[in-house]
Amino acid sequence: MARNKHPEETVRRILDVASRLFMEKGYEHTSIQDIIDHLGGLSKGAIYHHFRSKEEILEAVTNRMTAESNLLLAQIRDSKVGSGSEKLQRIFKMSIQRPVQEDIFTFAPDFRNNPKLLSSMLLDTVDHVAPDYILPIIRQGMADGSIRTEYPEALAELIMLVANIWLNPMTFNSSVRETYQKVMIFGQMMKGLGLDLLDQEMVDRITDLTALYQEHK
Amino acid sequence: MARNKHPEETVRRILDVASRLFMEKGYEHTSIQDIIDHLGGLSKGAIYHHFRSKEEILEAVTNRMTAESNLLLAQIRDSKVGSGSEKLQRIFKMSIQRPVQEDIFTFAPDFRNNPKLLSSMLLDTVDHVAPDYILPIIRQGMADGSIRTEYPEALAELIMLVANIWLNPMTFNSSVRETYQKVMIFGQMMKGLGLDLLDQEMVDRITDLTALYQEHK
Repeated sequence: MARNKHPEETVRRILDVASRLFMEKGYEHTSIQDIIDHLGGLSKGAIYHHFRSKEEILEAVTNRMTAESNLLLAQIRDSKVGSGSEKLQRIFKMSIQRPVQEDIFTFAPDFRNNPKLLSSMLLDTVDHVAPDYILPIIRQGMADGSIRTEYPEALAELIMLVANIWLNPMTFNSSVRETYQKVMIFGQMMKGLGLDLLDQEMVDRITDLTALYQEHK
Repeated sequence: MARNKHPEETVRRILDVASRLFMEKGYEHTSIQDIIDHLGGLSKGAIYHHFRSKEEILEAVTNRMTAESNLLLAQIRDSKVGSGSEKLQRIFKMSIQRPVQEDIFTFAPDFRNNPKLLSSMLLDTVDHVAPDYILPIIRQGMADGSIRTEYPEALAELIMLVANIWLNPMTFNSSVRETYQKVMIFGQMMKGLGLDLLDQEMVDRITDLTALYQEHK
């Protein structure tokens, strides 16, 4: 086998094909062989040179999507416009509105049977998303008077744990009805913490995404 | 090797020895060989007949502790005494006060590097603890007027996810200061949901357990 001189190009091609197949067929119904078949001449050895398993490919696909999402989070965090609480609301709106969510919810990986994926989503939320993106916004809100808390670190973690993990219908395979109830409780919890973020548009969007997920699962 | 006629007895012995060693040396510092050395004559083959890995032994030890905890949860749930909200408070008090917590926090397994364990704790909380123990108590509270909610299933899940997973210093390796802040935010969140459960004694106990955990990690 000829050595590939552009490994990052090969990885990009593998992830492009894998993303598309995960979306079309669903993660559970896509095999490594399917991915190879769509890579036009790439050998099994070449793919295993970069990824040890289908789960690792999923992780890389997810990481690439996370990197895109983090760029958007950073833009809102660093924007000169808006109070802390307005930025927090913008983050929620952006996160659920952006079109790539349709793709992600169509993947529908089964988190119940992918402990590594579930665990890495959980740790990423607590280790990176909360401290790097949400905490600075909460601190801005404390400074501009739009957010009141004595414990910004814990507040950032709690909000993201609940929003990213628990509200996500993919994590625990929630039905539309269950997700609706969770969103309502989330809104109530946020109000109790002094943050009125939720509007009807967001509730509708989350339940629509849940329906999409349930359809493709 | 002679076939063991009492496999459940062998399993019990393995778990007893493993529990003790996990407590004395910590999970990460206990090897399968340590467990075998303390089993007086049991072969490596015999232990591997029952458990494929140290992680599986930890899961079994954890399951045994969970079963004990569930018995206590069921007693409170089924008690004839107290309103729903009083029972919920009793559950929190019991959960953190019972002496076995010292043992569990001394184990200090590293959840960050045990995705299977983290994932199974998360799913057990959502699939069993919330619907089987907390939900019936919330329903009782709705009937007796001590708890007000339109979404009892989601409320039960949210409370247990936050209390069992996020507040647990072992999950994300929280310091005493971080745990204190989390408990305060948890108390605020619960008040916002109409449930005033937290008292100073509980705050003190949770931070003490965190200190114990950090000491043995």
